[in-house]
Amino acid sequence: MPGKLHTLYHLNMLSLASDTADRWLQQVDEGLEEVLIDHAHCEKKAAGTAMGLLVAYVENEELCREMTEIVNEELEHFHLVLALLKRREIRFRRMKPSTYGRRLHEYVRRDEPQRAVDRLLIAGLIEARSCERFSRLRDHVSDRELADFYGSLFESEARHHATYVRLAQAYASADEVRERLLYLAEKEAQIIAEGDDYPRMHS
Amino acid sequence: MPGKLHTLYHLNMLSLASDTADRWLQQVDEGLEEVLIDHAHCEKKAAGTAMGLLVAYVENEELCREMTEIVNEELEHFHLVLALLKRREIRFRRMKPSTYGRRLHEYVRRDEPQRAVDRLLIAGLIEARSCERFSRLRDHVSDRELADFYGSLFESEARHHATYVRLAQAYASADEVRERLLYLAEKEAQIIAEGDDYPRMHS
Repeated sequence: MPGKLHTLYHLNMLSLASDTADRWLQQVDEGLEEVLIDHAHCEKKAAGTAMGLLVAYVENEELCREMTEIVNEELEHFHLVLALLKRREIRFRRMKPSTYGRRLHEYVRRDEPQRAVDRLLIAGLIEARSCERFSRLRDHVSDRELADFYGSLFESEARHHATYVRLAQAYASADEVRERLLYLAEKEAQIIAEGDDYPRMHS
Repeated sequence: MPGKLHTLYHLNMLSLASDTADRWLQQVDEGLEEVLIDHAHCEKKAAGTAMGLLVAYVENEELCREMTEIVNEELEHFHLVLALLKRREIRFRRMKPSTYGRRLHEYVRRDEPQRAVDRLLIAGLIEARSCERFSRLRDHVSDRELADFYGSLFESEARHHATYVRLAQAYASADEVRERLLYLAEKEAQIIAEGDDYPRMHS
């Protein structure tokens, strides 16, 4: 029952409320080049998110340490994707992003410390979804280099997810964080189910 | 003539239009703890600036590579300053920043590619001023650990300055960059001469 195990793994470890629908893999097949370019942008955005959190919560020593590591790792991934694009002679370019990030961030509450909780948990859910999608891509694509690449990124995304959820507990009780994470994971599942008409990492 | 050499060095290598006035060293002597805390904030801001430039000009491959390196180095410095504060039992905290950065950024032109030129040159001038002030601090403070620390940061700030000025030439001719740099350096010298009433790295 690999499908079942798959689901359990995500629910338990990644806090996601859904698995990626097969229609996304179809989008990937039809627009792999765009998904690869979008992947580079996603790594850049992930680095920017961690930097933004460091700046916003600079008095939190543990957060500063973890965000620094995530910034470094995401920028490293960004350059790995750029190198992959170059090897494939795909020109890196600006593209219309998916609506996923913007829609998720509409759930960030305005006042602190709830704002910190939401920013951290949403960053964590994005990492979780990336992780889940890398896993699907690794199993789906026939291209060996790509499959290995996605496999190699899986672990760090899962780790980042766990880091963000842990850090949120500096701003709310463990119970409150768990409850909010369940709530946001439901919203995330709705947003990712609706997707976008164009192929993106989070369409 | 160390003073004279000092000046020549800065004018030639760092593009600065002035040397730091002695009144700043007096501010440092009277408020060293605040200057140290502000230094940590400055390293964080330098990392944020490089990340912002990477995001804004992501299609520039060389810029992305250099900004990644600067982000990593500045975050490393940030943690070095935090460790130094910790050893001295100084609590890292938020503080009113100097007006220097905000005032300098008022000179950023609105339209591209001039905007890119100005953002890069102003980032370069801030690195140059930090470099010059680290040099003054290294020679001024009697505290051995601090003197060595500032000495160790000098080289990377000078290198970052050169990198920013070089990158600006992707957005304007070498002549235009040189002219604009002279103009902005004059403005920088005015701003730093006026300073702030409270002790900061750029007061």
